[in-house]
Amino acid sequence: MAQLPLQKTIGIIGGGQLGKMLIEASRPLNFHYHILENDAHCPASHLADKVIVGKLTDDTKIRELAESTDVITYEIEHVNSETLLDLEAKGKLIIPSPKALQIIQDKGKQKQFYSKHFIKTAPYYIVNSDSDWEIALNNISGEKLAVKLCKGGYDGKGVVIANRSDIINGTYPFSEPCMVEKFVPNVRELAIIVAQDQQGNITEFPEVEMFFSPVSNLVEFLFSPSRFNAEIIAEAKKLAHQVVASFGTPGLFAVELFVDQNNQVWVNETAPRPHNSGHHTIEACYTSQYEQLNRILAGYPLGDTSLIQPSAMINITGPTDFTGPYQLDNLDDLLKTTGVYVHLYNKADSKPHRKLGHITVLDTDMESLLAKAEKVKSMIKIIPA
Amino acid sequence: MAQLPLQKTIGIIGGGQLGKMLIEASRPLNFHYHILENDAHCPASHLADKVIVGKLTDDTKIRELAESTDVITYEIEHVNSETLLDLEAKGKLIIPSPKALQIIQDKGKQKQFYSKHFIKTAPYYIVNSDSDWEIALNNISGEKLAVKLCKGGYDGKGVVIANRSDIINGTYPFSEPCMVEKFVPNVRELAIIVAQDQQGNITEFPEVEMFFSPVSNLVEFLFSPSRFNAEIIAEAKKLAHQVVASFGTPGLFAVELFVDQNNQVWVNETAPRPHNSGHHTIEACYTSQYEQLNRILAGYPLGDTSLIQPSAMINITGPTDFTGPYQLDNLDDLLKTTGVYVHLYNKADSKPHRKLGHITVLDTDMESLLAKAEKVKSMIKIIPA
Repeated sequence: MAQLPLQKTIGIIGGGQLGKMLIEASRPLNFHYHILENDAHCPASHLADKVIVGKLTDDTKIRELAESTDVITYEIEHVNSETLLDLEAKGKLIIPSPKALQIIQDKGKQKQFYSKHFIKTAPYYIVNSDSDWEIALNNISGEKLAVKLCKGGYDGKGVVIANRSDIINGTYPFSEPCMVEKFVPNVRELAIIVAQDQQGNITEFPEVEMFFSPVSNLVEFLFSPSRFNAEIIAEAKKLAHQVVASFGTPGLFAVELFVDQNNQVWVNETAPRPHNSGHHTIEACYTSQYEQLNRILAGYPLGDTSLIQPSAMINITGPTDFTGPYQLDNLDDLLKTTGVYVHLYNKADSKPHRKLGHITVLDTDMESLLAKAEKVKSMIKIIPA
Repeated sequence: MAQLPLQKTIGIIGGGQLGKMLIEASRPLNFHYHILENDAHCPASHLADKVIVGKLTDDTKIRELAESTDVITYEIEHVNSETLLDLEAKGKLIIPSPKALQIIQDKGKQKQFYSKHFIKTAPYYIVNSDSDWEIALNNISGEKLAVKLCKGGYDGKGVVIANRSDIINGTYPFSEPCMVEKFVPNVRELAIIVAQDQQGNITEFPEVEMFFSPVSNLVEFLFSPSRFNAEIIAEAKKLAHQVVASFGTPGLFAVELFVDQNNQVWVNETAPRPHNSGHHTIEACYTSQYEQLNRILAGYPLGDTSLIQPSAMINITGPTDFTGPYQLDNLDDLLKTTGVYVHLYNKADSKPHRKLGHITVLDTDMESLLAKAEKVKSMIKIIPA
């Protein structure tokens, strides 16, 4: 049985807001954190015990991180999974396993993984070179197609909705390998965060309903519980559970799903880390996604993921009209509002669509929650400093 | 109006668990913290940006802390208030004002302050030398007397219940100045944390009902809301509010009160800092005592102090049978229980009665809360590592 106080040191590849919040959630555990990040002044830097400055893909730096830590995790997919695989083979504890990471890093492999495990997902075809486009078009129906770069996409980048006619005319969305998928209009989106501990136990967080910006492809707004019916929620939970059970590694995963107008549910994609769709769990759930991952890393049992109150989360992103130092306007009024939690990520400059922070809103019932969240949303304003 | 991100640096005199939790609550503010503490490995050390190692009474070290920070607070009363008074006179922002601290540091002056402001407190007499005892006994009735050292008492130390007959026989509890108070048997204890912001607004947290260990004089167990009737609660809130309004300085204060068998309510004493009786607010209230103090230090408005759920708090203290490295037993079972939050203070060694951590318990109603808290209490066991 695990005992406290442990003096474990956790290595995090990446020092962005997810790493920052992971460290903030370490309350009962008193862990130490070493992070690897390109930018010495990254969001998590002033909370970490040690910052190794280097690229997230740098073999030597990752091995340096492994030397000084008991377990390694990552808060972004774009890390050197080859190095992690080698370290894992040599006995280093890496959570989630880099085997799962390698599947997720490549959207084509990720889709094939779902197919192999009979997990419902949209029809797709993998385009490795221009000559594959014709077969892709034969396989995927519809005038519009969702096209995603197999590798390197992030935060809404690397995804386009392409016209069949343009592709027929030889205008291809990407020249690198990509995954072409049936485009389903008017889908609603939900996400379920699923955690697997080192003993193989799996638990889900309550589902969230998400709203994306049509401009930036970023989550703008979400709330939990969702307004989907019980059948849809049960189906989504089943699928999310199936994804994480199939990966068969401890870790925390965010499974994003689509629901169409006929109430069909399928898996869109999975992230092997804490996720924007789980920020609200810090205040809204008995155990947050960040504490849950800390527990998993430490070998502790999973915590209860139930919601204490209905909650909403609103991203604070950089406006499109300036780049540089910024301020959050209306802060005093936000701080005066009951059940409003402002999180800022300690980023020096605003850039268009850059995630600068988020606000979690709690309330006792859905109706007042949504009204309050709308009001808070209208108050968020990033202005030049 | 205050704007984010601010890059303020807060100085804390003392780096114990209260300082640790103050830093942990800085989420939205991204402050930097410099602490002054005798022990470089104190609980708050690995969260602070800078640790100045030195005595809390060291004039030079306190001035060094003032040099590098925008505002100074303290998490313990036993600091050099003379230095702080001088710094304040020179324009340094110190919260709460050292004028209030100097009154509180001396239990005699504290009592005189309550008298001066017509705040209900138990009859008392200040004994400055052995020759004062006779007058004290003439002024305070009862076979038993509560006697407190005017200066230096802490965490149950410096307080004795003395017999009148022993004092008559010349056996004095203390040789230093002390405050002799009417001893009222079978009192119940409650505490109310009150915050005053830099604009002079005052807000109270919901009252807590406290249970002390008869052996160590330490808070063993508390819950909130209390089971007192509405009249008692209203009277207690009025008194607590009056105390903080009379101090007339921004800050966070814990006002401890007694209630006797006739439902009389009076002020026992006040602490000018976050307090053991407010640990539960981290999880139980919309705004915690620690976030509230951070807001005050930053010049931000106060947050809503309402309870989200009924809660209990249980201290984890060192057992009397050993000193040295320790473990918390039953940790896995505690972590598996819904609404149970384990906080450990990162202290290397257990000592008899030493505060090593606490556990907050949440539940939806009082009955299940008390049952769960009793169960959790029985599970807490510190064993040698």
